[in-house]
This record gives sequence, C-alpha cells and structure tokens, in this order.
Amino acid sequence: MIKVGLLGAGRIAGVHAAAISTHPASRLVAVSDHYPDMAEKLASDYGCAARSTAEIIADPEIDAVLIATSTDTHSDLIEAATAAGKAVLCEKPVDLSLERARACQQAAAKTSQPVMIGFNRRFDPGFGALKAALDAGEIGKAELLSITSFDPAPPPVAYIKVSGGLFRDMMIHDFDMANFIMGAAPVSVSAMASSIVDPEIGAAGDVDTAVVTLSYADGRIGVIKNSRRAVYGHDQRIELLGSEGLLQAQNMLENTVVKSTANGVISAKPTYFFLERYMPAYAAEWAAFVEAIVAGTSVPVSLADGVAALAMAEAASRSLASGAPVRLAEI
Amino acid sequence: MIKVGLLGAGRIAGVHAAAISTHPASRLVAVSDHYPDMAEKLASDYGCAARSTAEIIADPEIDAVLIATSTDTHSDLIEAATAAGKAVLCEKPVDLSLERARACQQAAAKTSQPVMIGFNRRFDPGFGALKAALDAGEIGKAELLSITSFDPAPPPVAYIKVSGGLFRDMMIHDFDMANFIMGAAPVSVSAMASSIVDPEIGAAGDVDTAVVTLSYADGRIGVIKNSRRAVYGHDQRIELLGSEGLLQAQNMLENTVVKSTANGVISAKPTYFFLERYMPAYAAEWAAFVEAIVAGTSVPVSLADGVAALAMAEAASRSLASGAPVRLAEI
Amino acid sequence: MIKVGLLGAGRIAGVHAAAISTHPASRLVAVSDHYPDMAEKLASDYGCAARSTAEIIADPEIDAVLIATSTDTHSDLIEAATAAGKAVLCEKPVDLSLERARACQQAAAKTSQPVMIGFNRRFDPGFGALKAALDAGEIGKAELLSITSFDPAPPPVAYIKVSGGLFRDMMIHDFDMANFIMGAAPVSVSAMASSIVDPEIGAAGDVDTAVVTLSYADGRIGVIKNSRRAVYGHDQRIELLGSEGLLQAQNMLENTVVKSTANGVISAKPTYFFLERYMPAYAAEWAAFVEAIVAGTSVPVSLADGVAALAMAEAASRSLASGAPVRLAEI
Amino acid sequence: MIKVGLLGAGRIAGVHAAAISTHPASRLVAVSDHYPDMAEKLASDYGCAARSTAEIIADPEIDAVLIATSTDTHSDLIEAATAAGKAVLCEKPVDLSLERARACQQAAAKTSQPVMIGFNRRFDPGFGALKAALDAGEIGKAELLSITSFDPAPPPVAYIKVSGGLFRDMMIHDFDMANFIMGAAPVSVSAMASSIVDPEIGAAGDVDTAVVTLSYADGRIGVIKNSRRAVYGHDQRIELLGSEGLLQAQNMLENTVVKSTANGVISAKPTYFFLERYMPAYAAEWAAFVEAIVAGTSVPVSLADGVAALAMAEAASRSLASGAPVRLAEI
Repeated sequence: MIKVGLLGAGRIAGVHAAAISTHPASRLVAVSDHYPDMAEKLASDYGCAARSTAEIIADPEIDAVLIATSTDTHSDLIEAATAAGKAVLCEKPVDLSLERARACQQAAAKTSQPVMIGFNRRFDPGFGALKAALDAGEIGKAELLSITSFDPAPPPVAYIKVSGGLFRDMMIHDFDMANFIMGAAPVSVSAMASSIVDPEIGAAGDVDTAVVTLSYADGRIGVIKNSRRAVYGHDQRIELLGSEGLLQAQNMLENTVVKSTANGVISAKPTYFFLERYMPAYAAEWAAFVEAIVAGTSVPVSLADGVAALAMAEAASRSLASGAPVRLAEI
Repeated sequence: MIKVGLLGAGRIAGVHAAAISTHPASRLVAVSDHYPDMAEKLASDYGCAARSTAEIIADPEIDAVLIATSTDTHSDLIEAATAAGKAVLCEKPVDLSLERARACQQAAAKTSQPVMIGFNRRFDPGFGALKAALDAGEIGKAELLSITSFDPAPPPVAYIKVSGGLFRDMMIHDFDMANFIMGAAPVSVSAMASSIVDPEIGAAGDVDTAVVTLSYADGRIGVIKNSRRAVYGHDQRIELLGSEGLLQAQNMLENTVVKSTANGVISAKPTYFFLERYMPAYAAEWAAFVEAIVAGTSVPVSLADGVAALAMAEAASRSLASGAPVRLAEI
Repeated sequence: MIKVGLLGAGRIAGVHAAAISTHPASRLVAVSDHYPDMAEKLASDYGCAARSTAEIIADPEIDAVLIATSTDTHSDLIEAATAAGKAVLCEKPVDLSLERARACQQAAAKTSQPVMIGFNRRFDPGFGALKAALDAGEIGKAELLSITSFDPAPPPVAYIKVSGGLFRDMMIHDFDMANFIMGAAPVSVSAMASSIVDPEIGAAGDVDTAVVTLSYADGRIGVIKNSRRAVYGHDQRIELLGSEGLLQAQNMLENTVVKSTANGVISAKPTYFFLERYMPAYAAEWAAFVEAIVAGTSVPVSLADGVAALAMAEAASRSLASGAPVRLAEI
Repeated sequence: MIKVGLLGAGRIAGVHAAAISTHPASRLVAVSDHYPDMAEKLASDYGCAARSTAEIIADPEIDAVLIATSTDTHSDLIEAATAAGKAVLCEKPVDLSLERARACQQAAAKTSQPVMIGFNRRFDPGFGALKAALDAGEIGKAELLSITSFDPAPPPVAYIKVSGGLFRDMMIHDFDMANFIMGAAPVSVSAMASSIVDPEIGAAGDVDTAVVTLSYADGRIGVIKNSRRAVYGHDQRIELLGSEGLLQAQNMLENTVVKSTANGVISAKPTYFFLERYMPAYAAEWAAFVEAIVAGTSVPVSLADGVAALAMAEAASRSLASGAPVRLAEI
C-alpha cells in the first residue's frame, strides 16, 4: 500500500484525491495547502490528516507525494520531495521558466527518485487507442498529425496574466501529445496566433487563438490548433494521416441520444468541462504511476517529457515574437 | 448511513457490492451466498462479514438488503426481508411464475416496506436522456416505439433451460423499458419468434430471435426485437417516433477512434459485455434506491413494475404458443 | 434505340420522362394523359408528340410503354400494351384488387412480353449495397430484417380514400423490399396499426401508423414499420441482423455539414421529398429495364413480384381486420 | 441558347461537355484539341463539330468558350477569346507564372468580357452550405479555418514535373476556398512541407505533404493541409470555428451502408475519385456561369480570384524556400 501525501487542495487536487483513494494499492494519508482550511476540508472528506507541506515531505512514512499546487512552486517541491526520498507525480507544467525546469530536472535526477509529470491526456481512452493503433501499424507510417484542442470558454483575464501564456498553460498539453504520438521531438516550431476571442487577453499580452506547426527530421509534419473558446464544449480531437490510412480520435459526447425534428438532426454536445472528459484519464494516470512505483519500472511520463513540452512552448513563444520558425535545438 | 446486507455473491452481486461501497450514504456490512466460500471471498474484498442469509435478514442493525440470488429464491426473500422491516432492492425478474410474483407483491405490500426491482436500464444515461427529452415534449406525442436488444452471444443451453425462456429472462428488460418510456401498459401483446441462432435452444423449448408488438389503448404501437446473438457486441438501442420528431438512443462504443483505410471507415464496436455498457446504470440505480430510502419517497421502480413486466412476458409466451395476439387484461 | 411511349403526364411521369430522355439507348417519342393539356405540356418539354393512349399502344413504331397513369388503369393497360407487342414498365401497384392483378399476370404471360413493375427502391444505391453485401456473405446468414419507412407528411384525406389503404399504397414498397432482401416470400403476415397521426385518416377507414411482422419458413423474421408522418423528412432505413453481423442502410442527408453550437451538434436532415431521395433510383430502374430489353434477359422486377407484394398487402389488411396472423398461402 | 466552343478534349473537358449539353440554356457546338482525333471523338459523342481552336475563337456564332487545355495555354487563350468577344470559363490555374496571369488579367479587363475561373469546389453542395451558414450568422464571426484536402494517390512523377508544384497545382483549390470562405485575402502565408509520401516527388523538386498557415488582418487564422496520398479516398473537409460555434463540411461517402461485424463498425469510404465527389459541383459551376452570362451579371469566380489564389501559391512557395512567413503584399 503506497501512502500518499497530497500537496494542494484545490479543484484538481480533489480529482487526484478521489483517484488516490479509489485505487486499491494507494492510500491518501495527508493533505496540505497554502490555505489551511482548504486542506482541512479535503482531508476531512477523505478521512486523512491536514498537515503542512514541510511536514508531509519530512514524514518518512509517506512514500509518494502528488504536487497539485500553483505552478510557481512545482520545481521547488519536486526537488524537496525527491531529496526526501519520495516518488513524485507533479501536475503540468513543470515550471514557467525553462531554465528553472532544467535545473529541477538535474537536481531530481541526482536523487534517482521517480518523477512523473501529469500529462493526463496520454491516458485518455480515445487518444490511447489512437496511439495503440499507430503502434500496431494499422495506418502504416505516420506522416501528418493534427491536434485540435479548444476550451469551452476563456478563463478570467486575471488567470491569463499569471498563466505563463497560452503556449505554456494550454498548448503544453498538445506539445506533450505530439511528442507522445510522434515518438520524437520536432526539429522546428512555427507559431501564428492572435487574440480574436477576447481583446482583453491581447491587452494582457497573451493570445487566445493559435496554430503551431511542427516539422520533424524525417519529413513528418504536425499542426496544433488552440482556441480559448468553443461554445459547444471541450473540443479535443486528434487526427493522424499515415501511409496506409487515417486515425481520428473524436470527442466524447454527453450522451448517445440523437433527436431528429423539423430543425435538424441533433446530437448531444461534447462534454463541456474538462473534468467530464478527462476523469477516466486522471484515474488511469494515477494507476499507471502506482504500477510503475510498485514494479520499480520507469514512470510513463518523465520529468524530461515535461521539460521537452516546455521547450516547445518556449520555441512557440519565440516564433510568435519573431514571426519566423524556431529550431528546437536553439532553445 | 444505510447498512446493507447483500444476498448472493455471484457476478452481479459483485457489481452491486461496488456500487454499495462507493456510495457515500450506504455501507456494505454483510454478504451471504448458497456457496459460503463465495460469500467469504466477496466479504473479504469489501472488508465486511460473510453471514448466512437468515442471519442477515434477522439482524436489526441492517437497514436494507440487496437480493442478487437465483431467481427461484427472489419471492421468498422479498417476503422475508420486508417482513423483517428491511428495504429491498431485488434483481429482476421477481419470479418466473406470475402467480407467485403477484402473491409476493401482496405480501410485501402489507409490510409497507419499499421494494425496488433492479431494472437497471432505466438508469442508463442514454435511455434516461431519451425519456427526459420525451417528457420535455421535444418530439411531441409518442406514437411508435422500437426497442432493439441483442446480446452478443447466446448463453449455454444449460442456462437457457432454467432461464424461464427468452421472454422472462431477456425481453423482460425491454418490457419494463416499454412501460417506462410509454408510461402505460399495452392492451395487447403479439409475439413472433424462432430458434434460428442455435437449434439447441429450440430443442430446449426456447427461442433465440423474437419480435413482439405491443398495442396501446390510445393507438400507440411498440415493437421489441430480441436476438441472443449479435457478434459485434451488446446492441441496445431505442427509437421513438413522435408527432414532432424522432428520438434515438444509440449504442455506446468502446472508444472514439475512427480508422479510415483502403478497407473502409472503421469505428469501434459497441461495448461487448453488458457490464461495460450498464456499469454506470448500476451505480445510478443504487443511488436512486438510497435517495428514495433516505427521503422516504417511493422507489422509482416498484414491485408492481416488476409484476407488470412479468405479465407481458407471460402474454408474449401465450401469444407465441397460440399464434395470436393476447390481451394483457386476460393475463 | 428503344422508342418509348409514356402513358400518363403527372408528377411521376415527369420523373420517368427525364430518365427516358437522358438514357443513351432510349428515346421518348409520345406522351398521353387523361387530361390532354397535361400531355401537351410534357410532350412539349421533351420535344415529342402528345397522342392518345390508344394511338400509342397501336403504333408499331413504339417499342415500349411506361405506364404512369392512375392505379385503376394499370391492369388494363398492361394487358393492352403486351397484347400489342410492347415491353412494359408499370408503376406500382399492379392493381388494388389482387384478383384483377392475378388475371392481368396470366394475360400478360400469354404474350411473353416483358413486364417490369416500378419498385424503384430496389435500385436505391444504399439498399442495393446492403443487398450486395448480404449476397457476398458479409454478415453470414440473414436472421432478422427491419424496414423503417416513414413519409414526411400524410397525403390529403381525399387521396387516402382512393389509395387502397396504407398497406397497398405505401407499405407495398416495403413488402417488395422484404422479398428483394430475403429472397423469399414470408409464410405468415401479422399486422398492428392505428390512425394516431390523423383521426381523419381513421375516419376514412385507413391507418397511418403500422407495424407488420413477417415470419419465414426457415425461422427468419421480418418487421416493417410505417408512419405517414416523420416531420424531419423521408425516413427510409433498412437493418438486417445476420449470423455474422449487422447491415444498416441509413438515410441520405441533405448535405454533409455539421454545426456545433451551444444548442447541440446539428446535422442536415434526411432528404425531405421522396424524389430527392429516390431520383438516382428512378434513373437506375430505367437503365435496368433498358438493359434487360436490349439483352433479351428477364426484367429485374417482374409482374409476379408486383402480385406477390400485393398479396402481402392483402394479408396484412386481413390480419389487421381479424387481429390474427394470416398465412400467405391462404391469400 | 448560349453556343459554346470547348477548347480541349481530355478527361476534364469531357466532364464539361456533359454539363454544357445537359444545361437547358447552353449548347455545345464545337470542340478542339491539340490531338485532332481526341476532338473528333468527343465531338462525335456530343453530336457537334470538331474544329481548330483558332476557328472556334474566330467564329462569331459562338458565344462562349470553355478552356480545358493544358495550363501553359490558358493565358493566351483567355486573351484571344475575350478579344474575340467571347465569354470565357477557364479551368484553374490561370497560369503557372503569376506575372503572366496578371498580364492576362489586364488584357482581358480591357475587353470587358466575362472571364470565370473554374474553381469548381465553390459549387460543392457541402462547402456551399457551410459558406451559407456562415453568411447567415449561424456560428457568429469566423475565427479559425481549417481545410483538409488529400488526394487518394499521387500522380505520376512525370506529371509532377510539369504541374507547377503542389502549391500551384493542388493547394490552389484550397487557397481559393480560403478566400471564398473568409471573404478576404490573408496578410501573410507560412508554409511547411516535405516529400514523405514519395521521395521521387522530392527528387523532382516538389513536395507531397504540406501545411500552410494564413494570417488575416483582423486576427483570423487559416490552416490548409495537403497530402498527395490518402489511401481511403478523396478526403476533402472544411472546419470553421466561429465565435458562436463550429461548422464542419464532411466527406461524401460512397453509400449509406454501415456494417457491424466482429471486426468493427464499418462505413463506406469517402468517394475515391475527384469526379465522383465533384460531379455535382461541375454542373453547378456551369449553371452559375450560364446564369451570369444570361443575366449580364458578374461571374461568381473572377479572373481576379484566379490571380489571387496564384499569388498565395507563389507566397507559399517562397515561404517554403526561405523558411519564413511571406507577406502577400510583397508578391
């Protein structure tokens, strides 16, 4: 039984708390948060202790920590927890600063503790089935990847300001997905973006609509489309053209009912909220972490993967600024 | 917290044990089975006691029992449990004998204890959404109902022999679904059936492929199609034509991936096993039971509903034997 | 070049006129109608002569006639045209009277002239592809056939009164389709029907909503659903369960656009008018007729097929009246 | 009745010959070709004269010419035909040389004769319905356009060598489609491409897989994906995200049959050959040309539109060569 300390008690921490508690081989033993009453509340819901982050990290009885705090604390907590001999699952992104993330990666590597980054979408059943079909050779050799990733509605501008920007905050999931599907990092990254959804986002120095193209050493091409607003729901699709066919992972719909009336043939919308769509993925992510820890094998999404996605976000930012493609090797 | 005793420790009992344990307002406290080691096994998985059925029913600490034993014991256990002051959720069918089921209904009614019958499909998200759309007037007035209900593969002939036959064992779900959707029992029932899937089933006196038509007092019509074999998976669909449109509840697919190759455009199959399809329905069924018990309101699927579906199965059997429609009032 | 006389100048005659004119191996040379100015109009559109029906039948230069007059004239015209040595394509149904149709069949048989009945749906690309897939063994052996056939809106009650009733006027297409797909006539026919769409239709002695079940000698089962009203369009689907899979021929939609908004995911409706749906079928039907005439082979839908479908309509009418299944052998 | 001379007698000329002949207001009177026997063959099929191109252009009885010759002759023929007072419908592209195309545009403008460029996809029913829905405000304001345009198989390398390259030969359709949907030319064009489908194409100096991003003055973004090979058929889709929803124009499938077996749920493939997909578009294109000529209104796709698409192809070529976005104003 793996004893787990949960750092952070916000919304996403609640999702992880459920996954940790439900898994037969892990137990949630402590929760901390910057706001102690939030930690108390979550701890009470799961019948465990609310403690300070320092106490949790120092407790030799705790085997693993799940870091679901604000992004600016991730690197420090990864370093502290690995130094204290704990296995770590940390929410994405590793850091907003690529330099800091790389330093963290080096520090953690010295401890040899497993560190997994929470790119939960790799564990989405649809995306996983697409990857499995590719690996099984069902469409031959991959050639052209398209990722569509639209949020239902933009976050508050206050959030945008501290988010690190669309590339580091939102598209980072898609950068990791591209790496997951393609099995290699791209050679160059080219970004085109604007703030057409909400001029306030532009005024805050960010973009809300973006297309990033990726070129690979062997001639493969990838394209990622992001928008902060798709009023019909969380639109998360992948399409991969290969030498012998096409794979498409489509949206999950809210239900299976189709209504035909004088107004048209109307299906349910895609699930609106990311938690509806990705709840199974969060559970599968935790199960994969536990499985690796128990078996002593590598975690399926490494700290290096987290750094790689961050480097692509950095490259996309620079490409947007310069108006030219950026070679990833220069990042 | 409702304390629950689970009678039966087979496959479906395991499904219920998970639902009971996961629900925040119920706790599984005891399990019994005809085979004590099966009860021990399940009780051990859920950290509760293995006891005899009699002990569970006699225990004043237990608030409710879930009956998941073999069909021939249902009526007796419903009577015993309600007489002992327990709320009951009993798997379908109530009984293979309509007469016995009616006697049970009368006996239980005298105790005023709530008895819910496990027609879990009413709690399927798709079927529920279809019913909600109908009730919201989205297709006007219902006119023509079609239920398609195919199992992936026939059960062993040994099971067929004790099953009560396709109408009581399999189509009973669809009879209840028709009652749920249409909000009324039909006036007459007409059956056409054969054993074309497996002659052994015919030799055992049963059928494996059937179409039953239902006629309602106000002119509405229903048709139910059953087959014991659909090699592509569990095919469970409802279609309802109304004065202002059509509602269709379609199959859940195994995943959202579509593959296009030189061989065609290939989607995932419907979920193959009924547990994959109906797992959310089982959890929702239990939640509805708990909610009714806690609130002191009527259970959403009554013992009378169970008897009504059984009467339709009886009518279908007689129609098949006589080759003519049977009026439900004569049953 | 086959020279064709067209008997009738109404709406459906116009459809045939286009098919005849477009086909490279046939030429429309004359048109007649009960209302001469309608014949003049159509003849003028196609640059041919308006003549009397008698003249057309008597003209030795004319190779074939297409009968698109009112149903009550079909048998007489088939007899007259075949006696005059012409090949005939006659719109469905052969007659409203089964007895008269059988007499016509005998009379025509004596002339050895080819007579094809206009069951155009056999030539629908979707239904044809379903039949081809069945014949190619793609779903093994057929077991359970379902035909859904809904019109977008009921015809005027004045039409209903002379139509011969839903079974002879509307479901006759589906009876022929069942014979086409199953490759055999059923043993018995059982009907359930009501006038729930429009009580005026009931007052006129007809029904507007019907389910007919068909039982076959080898255990196969068929079910046909008809409604005079599906507000979302012409709903024409076939579903066939076989020992190794399921075939579904779905509706043609008006276009391929899907719109996702806050109100749902909205596809185009099925084509609303039967001519939109079946225009390609009418052209293919005529091409098949011409091909058979030119090659001297049997026409693909014989007068016997027309009589067989009419017998099923008669059986369904009797079943509805008696409330019991009717054996086709007794018709 | 518009009398039409057809310049060119190859495959696409045959498609146009059928459209011209079928239209009630136009008549095909003459055909020419570089290979006289091809002209003879096509003229014989349509009962018109085979003549030289010069004779057709000089004939005052001919109202319009349709230019379906090889691309290198388009500009000369447009100039000659308009100078001779004829209305012109010319196949795309106007020319491989942007400079030559612009000179042709100036020369033709002086004659005031209508010149339409054959961007037939604007007349595809699905794409047209998408554009109409956008114009009707059904998804609010356009933000992000995606065009997927894959051919089923690459052409021979011999063709590639004279084609002008993927951007001028294949993606030019998509550049025009972007202009049609967006109603404006982009500000800048950025290309990423490779020859991953067939190295021979790369050796011939061309690419076979490409992603081009378009940025618009108001912040809108477009992305076009091309591949010379999609083994499952002609994959032609458009997706447009707007402020109030998403529009998708999907592929036409070969038929409506869906087969469910133990191997999956298999739909028909997209139509394989561009003529199957776009045949209705060619007929609608011709009808629109005739309508404009008869009414004396502007043709719906102007020579300026043809030059605009060519400029985008030129920009994409330069972007691919330089590795940086190219501003359209500089072309």
